[in-house]
Amino acid sequence: MNTSTTEQIVLAARPSGKPKLTDFRFEKASVPAPSSDQILLEVQYLSLDPYMRGRMDDRKSYAKPLQIGDVMTGEGVARVIASNRPDYSVGDIVLAQTAWCTHALSDGAGVRKLDPAAAPVTTALGVLGMPGFTAYSGLRSIGKPKPGETVVVAAASGPVGSLVGQLAKLAGARAIGIAGGPPKCAYVKNELQFDAAIDHRATDFPAQLARACPKGIDVYFENVGGAVWQAVLPLLNNFARVPVCGLIAQYNGLGPGDGKDRLPATMREILSKSLTVRGFIYSEFVEQHYPEFLREIGAAIAEGRIRYREDIVDGLERAPEAFIGLLDGKNFGQLIVRVTD
Amino acid sequence: MNTSTTEQIVLAARPSGKPKLTDFRFEKASVPAPSSDQILLEVQYLSLDPYMRGRMDDRKSYAKPLQIGDVMTGEGVARVIASNRPDYSVGDIVLAQTAWCTHALSDGAGVRKLDPAAAPVTTALGVLGMPGFTAYSGLRSIGKPKPGETVVVAAASGPVGSLVGQLAKLAGARAIGIAGGPPKCAYVKNELQFDAAIDHRATDFPAQLARACPKGIDVYFENVGGAVWQAVLPLLNNFARVPVCGLIAQYNGLGPGDGKDRLPATMREILSKSLTVRGFIYSEFVEQHYPEFLREIGAAIAEGRIRYREDIVDGLERAPEAFIGLLDGKNFGQLIVRVTD
Repeated sequence: MNTSTTEQIVLAARPSGKPKLTDFRFEKASVPAPSSDQILLEVQYLSLDPYMRGRMDDRKSYAKPLQIGDVMTGEGVARVIASNRPDYSVGDIVLAQTAWCTHALSDGAGVRKLDPAAAPVTTALGVLGMPGFTAYSGLRSIGKPKPGETVVVAAASGPVGSLVGQLAKLAGARAIGIAGGPPKCAYVKNELQFDAAIDHRATDFPAQLARACPKGIDVYFENVGGAVWQAVLPLLNNFARVPVCGLIAQYNGLGPGDGKDRLPATMREILSKSLTVRGFIYSEFVEQHYPEFLREIGAAIAEGRIRYREDIVDGLERAPEAFIGLLDGKNFGQLIVRVTD
Repeated sequence: MNTSTTEQIVLAARPSGKPKLTDFRFEKASVPAPSSDQILLEVQYLSLDPYMRGRMDDRKSYAKPLQIGDVMTGEGVARVIASNRPDYSVGDIVLAQTAWCTHALSDGAGVRKLDPAAAPVTTALGVLGMPGFTAYSGLRSIGKPKPGETVVVAAASGPVGSLVGQLAKLAGARAIGIAGGPPKCAYVKNELQFDAAIDHRATDFPAQLARACPKGIDVYFENVGGAVWQAVLPLLNNFARVPVCGLIAQYNGLGPGDGKDRLPATMREILSKSLTVRGFIYSEFVEQHYPEFLREIGAAIAEGRIRYREDIVDGLERAPEAFIGLLDGKNFGQLIVRVTD
């Protein structure tokens, strides 16, 4: 690539429902110069994650929405190519909030140095990064599976779900994964060694899920919402825990619906089964649990006790298309864009 | 009353929506004789509580549903009038699962002796009983209000809500009560000393609630559901806690609705605000907290630091009508039927 120009992808229009390619715009600009306390980063890998859909809407959430013309938010693995800070040297590899671009400036806030010898650097975007820590902290602080209990997670071949199930197994629980299509289900069952994998596209999906959970469900790690929640709800046991870290099925908005209000039934189950439904963002638990997460999961990966899968797409210009596919479940593993070599 | 006949009220038909008088049947029978390990109780006071509506439906819940012809479930204060057990004497006053009747047999399971000198015996059905302990345990174990936080509760003049608000105040939090109509609101504000009382029948109820909660809501003690939940939801702060102990607004079933599915919006708020929504039944916490509850709240009542109100109806035959009124919010305070003098 040309080292004097930077490339970036901005929010061109707010999506109505599912994002379209025209909601994004590819732009070129001059590489910015770092000020006296900044470093200049060249992005190598950019992570694409479902939460980004929320930032595209003009709605208050735990993070500020993007404005039209803003570079799309994102986290990347980057190389320091210029430094005016004593704590960073040219050549350092870091994890940073880079956004969807080839070059980014940083004052070091929220930046973490990576050791390429310890683990492939892309794992900092997935199993050893925000998605992995979401699985770890949600299960540890909210789900709390006990030996013999049944843990269910959707998007089970993805970076959060795959770790949820593997950690549930390590805790002595049964792990049931939900995924879309036979190849993902085969991966979840055979490679990740879940006790069962159910295809949510099957016409008898609720019945299949019920058969896979003969003793009910004690922990449902919620990252999709929608029809999967409806199938899970009647199977939840008394005192079941439901960590809620995502609702990908409703990020693109909902159709006109069938006229049914599903809230009363959910509230009734929460009451009659003494359920705990708890939303969370991984950042809540960083201070308390992040160091032990890196240590424990880093070791488990090095020893082969935990597996992960990445879906790498080449070229920043392909990020919008890949992101749209992510919201449809077209990726298979943590979705990462290789921005530069 | 005639001491050789017992009176009872049985479930005559399963209600469709709101119960009707014909769903109940008043019956007379001979007073049963206690077997060798039983006591015979004469019921003095019977408590009427919203949960009883759930038992009338043929639906699995935390308790078994009643069958047609069964005596309606209920808890009462009763006098021991015959005893074949060494641990009970004729004349003892007890709290027991008596059901809606004048006489009941018991083997002592779940029976608690009351000391009429310590507190009026009817308090064992309200502020010092199951409703009071529901408030105490839900706030202590789930709501956990901190000084300066805002606690909101509906049915605030009732036995659960009135204690929730008073305990919130004692914990240094602001207490906002929701009640139906000016007399109940005046009682909540002036006698119970909540910081504000809002009438849920007001056409601008959501706006009034928002004005009463300028710093948002940190604890919402859910006992009604429905429209009140819709008004509370946008006001909840990040990390708010929602103990769910009842859903009286939906016990009688719902009308055809307006075609809106309200579940996605609730799930989105749970996620984006890291809410905790936790159903519970008081029995979960009995072993851990009941003795301290009796001690603390008993002392607070004796010292006048906590107030309560009872709504006493005379005669078992009036229980169905009073119960139907309870589901419409017609009672004012803990609803109790005086069965015998």
